[in-house]
Amino acid sequence: MLGTSNDYLNRLKEREKDIDIYVGGEKVEDVLNNPVIRPSINVITKTYELSLKNEYKGILTVMQDNEEINRLVYVEKSINDLIMRAESQRILNSHIGNCNYRCTGHDGINAVYASTYDIDSKLNTEYHKRFLRWLKDVQSKDLVVETAMTDVKGNRSKGPLEQKNDFAYVHVVERKKDGIIVRGAKMHITGAAIADEILVIPTKNMKQNERDYAVSFAIKPETKNVHFISSWHPMDIMKKVSKDLGTDIDYPLPFGHRNTYLIIFDDVFVPNDRVFMDGEYEFTGKLIEYFVSHHRAGGGPCKAGFADVILGSAALMADANGVLNASYIQDRLLDIMRHGESAYAAGLAAMVKGYRHPSGEYIPDFRLANITKLDSIEHLKEAIIASADIGGGITVNAPSSKDLNIEGLSNKIAEALKGNENYTAEERLRIARLLQLWVAGPHLVGLIQGGGPPAAELLALKNDMKNRLNDLIENAKIMAGIKKE
Amino acid sequence: MLGTSNDYLNRLKEREKDIDIYVGGEKVEDVLNNPVIRPSINVITKTYELSLKNEYKGILTVMQDNEEINRLVYVEKSINDLIMRAESQRILNSHIGNCNYRCTGHDGINAVYASTYDIDSKLNTEYHKRFLRWLKDVQSKDLVVETAMTDVKGNRSKGPLEQKNDFAYVHVVERKKDGIIVRGAKMHITGAAIADEILVIPTKNMKQNERDYAVSFAIKPETKNVHFISSWHPMDIMKKVSKDLGTDIDYPLPFGHRNTYLIIFDDVFVPNDRVFMDGEYEFTGKLIEYFVSHHRAGGGPCKAGFADVILGSAALMADANGVLNASYIQDRLLDIMRHGESAYAAGLAAMVKGYRHPSGEYIPDFRLANITKLDSIEHLKEAIIASADIGGGITVNAPSSKDLNIEGLSNKIAEALKGNENYTAEERLRIARLLQLWVAGPHLVGLIQGGGPPAAELLALKNDMKNRLNDLIENAKIMAGIKKE
Amino acid sequence: MLGTSNDYLNRLKEREKDIDIYVGGEKVEDVLNNPVIRPSINVITKTYELSLKNEYKGILTVMQDNEEINRLVYVEKSINDLIMRAESQRILNSHIGNCNYRCTGHDGINAVYASTYDIDSKLNTEYHKRFLRWLKDVQSKDLVVETAMTDVKGNRSKGPLEQKNDFAYVHVVERKKDGIIVRGAKMHITGAAIADEILVIPTKNMKQNERDYAVSFAIKPETKNVHFISSWHPMDIMKKVSKDLGTDIDYPLPFGHRNTYLIIFDDVFVPNDRVFMDGEYEFTGKLIEYFVSHHRAGGGPCKAGFADVILGSAALMADANGVLNASYIQDRLLDIMRHGESAYAAGLAAMVKGYRHPSGEYIPDFRLANITKLDSIEHLKEAIIASADIGGGITVNAPSSKDLNIEGLSNKIAEALKGNENYTAEERLRIARLLQLWVAGPHLVGLIQGGGPPAAELLALKNDMKNRLNDLIENAKIMAGIKKE
Amino acid sequence: MLGTSNDYLNRLKEREKDIDIYVGGEKVEDVLNNPVIRPSINVITKTYELSLKNEYKGILTVMQDNEEINRLVYVEKSINDLIMRAESQRILNSHIGNCNYRCTGHDGINAVYASTYDIDSKLNTEYHKRFLRWLKDVQSKDLVVETAMTDVKGNRSKGPLEQKNDFAYVHVVERKKDGIIVRGAKMHITGAAIADEILVIPTKNMKQNERDYAVSFAIKPETKNVHFISSWHPMDIMKKVSKDLGTDIDYPLPFGHRNTYLIIFDDVFVPNDRVFMDGEYEFTGKLIEYFVSHHRAGGGPCKAGFADVILGSAALMADANGVLNASYIQDRLLDIMRHGESAYAAGLAAMVKGYRHPSGEYIPDFRLANITKLDSIEHLKEAIIASADIGGGITVNAPSSKDLNIEGLSNKIAEALKGNENYTAEERLRIARLLQLWVAGPHLVGLIQGGGPPAAELLALKNDMKNRLNDLIENAKIMAGIKKE
Repeated sequence: MLGTSNDYLNRLKEREKDIDIYVGGEKVEDVLNNPVIRPSINVITKTYELSLKNEYKGILTVMQDNEEINRLVYVEKSINDLIMRAESQRILNSHIGNCNYRCTGHDGINAVYASTYDIDSKLNTEYHKRFLRWLKDVQSKDLVVETAMTDVKGNRSKGPLEQKNDFAYVHVVERKKDGIIVRGAKMHITGAAIADEILVIPTKNMKQNERDYAVSFAIKPETKNVHFISSWHPMDIMKKVSKDLGTDIDYPLPFGHRNTYLIIFDDVFVPNDRVFMDGEYEFTGKLIEYFVSHHRAGGGPCKAGFADVILGSAALMADANGVLNASYIQDRLLDIMRHGESAYAAGLAAMVKGYRHPSGEYIPDFRLANITKLDSIEHLKEAIIASADIGGGITVNAPSSKDLNIEGLSNKIAEALKGNENYTAEERLRIARLLQLWVAGPHLVGLIQGGGPPAAELLALKNDMKNRLNDLIENAKIMAGIKKE
Repeated sequence: MLGTSNDYLNRLKEREKDIDIYVGGEKVEDVLNNPVIRPSINVITKTYELSLKNEYKGILTVMQDNEEINRLVYVEKSINDLIMRAESQRILNSHIGNCNYRCTGHDGINAVYASTYDIDSKLNTEYHKRFLRWLKDVQSKDLVVETAMTDVKGNRSKGPLEQKNDFAYVHVVERKKDGIIVRGAKMHITGAAIADEILVIPTKNMKQNERDYAVSFAIKPETKNVHFISSWHPMDIMKKVSKDLGTDIDYPLPFGHRNTYLIIFDDVFVPNDRVFMDGEYEFTGKLIEYFVSHHRAGGGPCKAGFADVILGSAALMADANGVLNASYIQDRLLDIMRHGESAYAAGLAAMVKGYRHPSGEYIPDFRLANITKLDSIEHLKEAIIASADIGGGITVNAPSSKDLNIEGLSNKIAEALKGNENYTAEERLRIARLLQLWVAGPHLVGLIQGGGPPAAELLALKNDMKNRLNDLIENAKIMAGIKKE
Repeated sequence: MLGTSNDYLNRLKEREKDIDIYVGGEKVEDVLNNPVIRPSINVITKTYELSLKNEYKGILTVMQDNEEINRLVYVEKSINDLIMRAESQRILNSHIGNCNYRCTGHDGINAVYASTYDIDSKLNTEYHKRFLRWLKDVQSKDLVVETAMTDVKGNRSKGPLEQKNDFAYVHVVERKKDGIIVRGAKMHITGAAIADEILVIPTKNMKQNERDYAVSFAIKPETKNVHFISSWHPMDIMKKVSKDLGTDIDYPLPFGHRNTYLIIFDDVFVPNDRVFMDGEYEFTGKLIEYFVSHHRAGGGPCKAGFADVILGSAALMADANGVLNASYIQDRLLDIMRHGESAYAAGLAAMVKGYRHPSGEYIPDFRLANITKLDSIEHLKEAIIASADIGGGITVNAPSSKDLNIEGLSNKIAEALKGNENYTAEERLRIARLLQLWVAGPHLVGLIQGGGPPAAELLALKNDMKNRLNDLIENAKIMAGIKKE
Repeated sequence: MLGTSNDYLNRLKEREKDIDIYVGGEKVEDVLNNPVIRPSINVITKTYELSLKNEYKGILTVMQDNEEINRLVYVEKSINDLIMRAESQRILNSHIGNCNYRCTGHDGINAVYASTYDIDSKLNTEYHKRFLRWLKDVQSKDLVVETAMTDVKGNRSKGPLEQKNDFAYVHVVERKKDGIIVRGAKMHITGAAIADEILVIPTKNMKQNERDYAVSFAIKPETKNVHFISSWHPMDIMKKVSKDLGTDIDYPLPFGHRNTYLIIFDDVFVPNDRVFMDGEYEFTGKLIEYFVSHHRAGGGPCKAGFADVILGSAALMADANGVLNASYIQDRLLDIMRHGESAYAAGLAAMVKGYRHPSGEYIPDFRLANITKLDSIEHLKEAIIASADIGGGITVNAPSSKDLNIEGLSNKIAEALKGNENYTAEERLRIARLLQLWVAGPHLVGLIQGGGPPAAELLALKNDMKNRLNDLIENAKIMAGIKKE
């Protein structure tokens, strides 16, 4: 069934007192109204609202067993599903102008679905059954799931077992009859604290002696001994201060910038029916491949959605400056559009060339998913640069909106900040801050690091190339006439 | 029915005495054995051979009315068809290592199919019926069709009517009861002289007073007053000389480099049943859009097929140099692969987002087709650069194979030209010449100009952007808080 | 004579009560200790300290009439001077890791020097003499000069006279016997409020009817009716909050990020001896060309200095992560170095090809200065991207340093934030914040907009090309054999 | 003294019967009139002619001991000399539109000058004295010197001693009282056979056990047992055929494309006074560094000269097409100009930062020389791409000029090939062929491989970075506040 934003907000209200969140060093008491957190909650309510719109039926939603469910909690079952998943990413992000916060949940669900199927098929375990039970609950309530993958990793030149630091990688420290106890820390987990469910998966391919690190499970944020430390970007303080002032001019973004968490698993008990892998190290590689196939492929339309917003924001800024129709500006706007479409195209292709997993799930093509990730970086960075070119210096040099109230100067400052007469100074300031998100905010790094850094994709493609090279060389020999066909 | 290379060769043999072809200033008497032309004939026979392979059934071929026909003469009828069309382009080109020569035919067929349907629907004409009759013949015999689009254009700053030169644009000079008489010249027409049929379409959107230039028709190369002047690239002479020497070391390419023709229509009579547009200027824009949608979208996988060949050739050269496994070389090979996949992805996306024309035909998305063209240039040029980096100076500095026969020096020259001991000097020379096609041949220009120069795609996208910009700006206003949703 | 930081600080202390500055909407009482402003004061004191170092003699300083003066207030008198100017930019910025704040002063001094010479030579005025008197004072006290060029410009599609807004461009509103009264606003003026002197010049080439806008003068920040509104970037709030906490972990940067001002000239009286142009519109174009020649050329080594800091910061982050020696990381570090050197090289070349102005001043080559600006954007953006790749997600997702003090969790959070054992969690946080300046701070926009946006350089180069094209075409004709030499 | 083209031609005429050259497998009897070789002779005579022009005095020439000599045989003695050397490269190449053939001679002279000085200083040998005697002769007669560096190298994964092939690297096979006997082969040696002198240097840093390969000497092309095998690019055949036809329409280039040689040293005797290194392996690294410092730095202005020609040729083609003033065309022309200037700037910078060698010679900065090489590739490849975009398909699809003579069709073909009415069809064909040199000729590979492939420069820069990184990291620590200054 499709969820509503009210359901979600009610659930969060009920649980908030039990979720242990820190923002800027302070314990959060009122999660729903915390200025740093609130925009991410708005994102999630927006995902519910959009899913209910008629025009997005079959895209943001999908029929399963005669019930309409949210694609964000769905296991994709056809190439068309994958394509609709790509479309849904673009639609969500072009409306939200920020990470939609639920995309990792979708990808985690799809990864663990296929992976538990693999394990059970080979080892006669019951992980898939467990997972289906959990998933049924998630789907029927349209719960918000976040996947927690990236371990804090300690010294990156060393493996899990060589770390001095027991929090470097999440792992099982004790196995009880009714469940396991896990310790460790994950970082960069988008929106984790405000999810209904967190789906934990390993961060890397584990080896035989790293069995305790081959662990996957679901957990609710309010679970005992789970702690959330929010990211604390300068824009978070801007957000807070803007709220304190009772205005949103300096931080107009209803959906904020990306908010992530460091999660401390401080010896957390996970009951068995929520454990989806415990020690089956030989399946970690595939689990991660399933996840990143979905996530990197989905990253293309995700960035296209961003590009739509950047294009609109840059054009709006150009209009507020009075130069929207200048030929140089139009050329640069076109650059933004082109780069967005190219990222979109790559992601679509990864979907179209997806394959059927034995479980019935469809998974995007791994090769093209990696291509999508790498190309998206190239494309979106250029879109960002173009918007910084169009936007002008005001996108980073804007004064505070409070300066519009300085006694004796306010009118003159307002005059000085006006561009095109159709926009007030306040409006122009708002637009500058909107664009600031892209040209001086956290998205550039998110673009590069999200879904794994370029080194990871390059390694995957290099392995892939090894498998193809021989055939291509033999073909070249024929063409050079040094071998007969 | 699927054709065979024998059928094609027999047809060509029968007609060759009537086709008026000039190569290097000389009238060609024996088309089949002309060294400049022969490789393009080999390409075409290869397209027949590949279409008969089981592994490509449903890709290179397609079932239509319970008959298996060649996709190269098929009107695409679904998104899946379009995707298979993309796959077929890559398969053909990765086997041929050159333009497959029949791709423009496919795109012309699809363009005129939709376009004649449009005209008839609006104007109650009979073009579509005529075209279907012609197409039936083409499909049943699996004929080789080339589309002739690009007019020589004279002074590009002027339109057709302002040209001093009556050959600048193909146009109707006389209308008779049973047909029309056309005059003008088309250029860059790949493989035109060796086609079974040439499908002529306008080169640009025509205006009301350019009615005589809004003309489309089919013609056989052997038609009276049609003359073909072959391109005369330095590699053509290389090809000729190599053949004269009775060796193919210096020009090993069985499928040659791209061979194109200047076609002179010297007052050619075209009977009415072969005329598919005559004066309906208002449909020229759409006709061209249909053509380039197919052609630019197909250009992505086309370039991916090239990248496959470049990757294999560069790797083979690296192996012949003894450095295939060097880490720098592997990085650069990966660059080639990446760029090929990115071009492929763009093309696939244009196919997936294709739409149904009222005639039932499916046409690739125009926006993404333009993106595909522009991105393909960026990608393939980098693949070419990487192969020039890997290949080394020998790709342009190789001596003649005849130098291997110099008395008293032949052994020493052979020693000097050897790299990796697993390859003879002759083999290494052949590989260098194979790579020379890409790093110093006509493909770089073909890549940029084929399907229309970048200026054309940019213009199309700019128009497209205009239609989208308002909505995106309004959306940005909401995000900046200067407008309510 | 070379100034000292103490002299500067004393001057500022004396004047601070008279300077009208607003930061975040609040009047600044204690300029020296304002957390948002202080880092820029540190930059300036650093420029004095570095100029006194022996190793930089002749580079940061220069002998003039047997006196050693700071190059930052010097009029360049030879090609070697220009080269040393380039070196000084890199030295300053690689030590400061931020704009050195005094570079625009240097460029303004050099621009007005040549320009007043031009005017006097042609019109028999006394601007140059006036300017020399002012300059003598500046040089003898080693004063901090900032050039204020960029007008707020109002609606950019309209010229000064068409603006509804009287503050859009700085202009003369009244001419008195002893001076002029100016009105208008300038924006993006780096460090203006803490300068000793502000040198005002026009923002664009003025036309005959825009005489009142062709005005140049020097003014002290404490002058009556001059108001400064500081930029208010999220990092400014971070800076402020960090200071409030009595720690600098979250904002460790001693020299801050770029701090700029909106200056309101609210009918300001400027005595005649400080007016260096008043109505001589026909010299505005050259004045601006002189300025941007110095400024865009100097922008190359400026960016190279930044690249040095980015390289060091990224390498430090990599070390703190334990991956400094990984081959992928080394490749990316090399990318940063390469791009820095390329920007440096372009700037050096503009200096070397500089020319002698009739006044005796040497001015960098205009063409190469424009090239330097455009290339610097391309290069430094890639350096930034590479550092974002190396730096990882922590550069934008780092928690607050206050989280290290959460009771009961502090140890575990510290464990989770540690990478390489040689660095504490606090140290790793500091490094992440250092890199944040580059990957999510205002420098990306500064890079693009500083010295004029790309459109300005492209226009200049296009005009330049027009002058060269004919000769090159004639030369090509000779090479094509269609014209005799 | 400055030489003249007549002197050179006379010398060549005298010696030609003794030079053993093969072109296309055939022994060359008449070197001066061989169609493949002649253009390279024209290049050399052009270098003499240009050096005599007043406007290039002090640039192409230089005063030494009160005598004016050609900079091409000069040892650079100041920074200004290095800058003039950069200028000379651009001047030569922008006139010649091809490699100037004598640049490697200059760089070899400068490398061996410094290197023999090093050896003598350390080992008390007499190489420098010998070299000075040889150089005196070269300078006084203004001889054409070519440096032969690149060995054929056999299997690149193995060192000289591991090769099965005795010709892989040039080395000493016997030492006699009065000289040495050398064996081996060098390749890619531009214009070697038509030089007055060939200066042979090692291709790589040699190790202790590779002493026999650490050999440098001068030799005349007519020396016994030296054999030259010309490169045999398709354009060579075009050149030959065009000459046979008695026309130059299809190959109008007076200075041809790059012509290189494979040189076989078939046990060649070199008298002692021409030997400049024999066994001093520990100096090979520096010798090569000196050479590539000059050569890679000089490569920047070299490519700028090419860009000048490309710009002129592309503009001429655009004019012949009637679109010179189209805004898209002007933008692309500007791209060519920009890229040329950027390559120029990099080279200039390497010169300006040159250093004084103990011998008194000035050598360009090694770091910036490597930067110049790498940047030149990026820049010129884009210039080439832009010219292919502007030039259109005719640059590779042009028919033969003989087609203009086809009976009965010649007028119509001429009509079809005309663009702008101000150009005849023949002229337009010539222009297309001029541009073909760049878009489908050997220069793209030459650009990448000349002066050593990118892998070589990257390695050098990586070593360089290692030396700088520590300081930069320590500086970053200060900025992050984790270390005191």
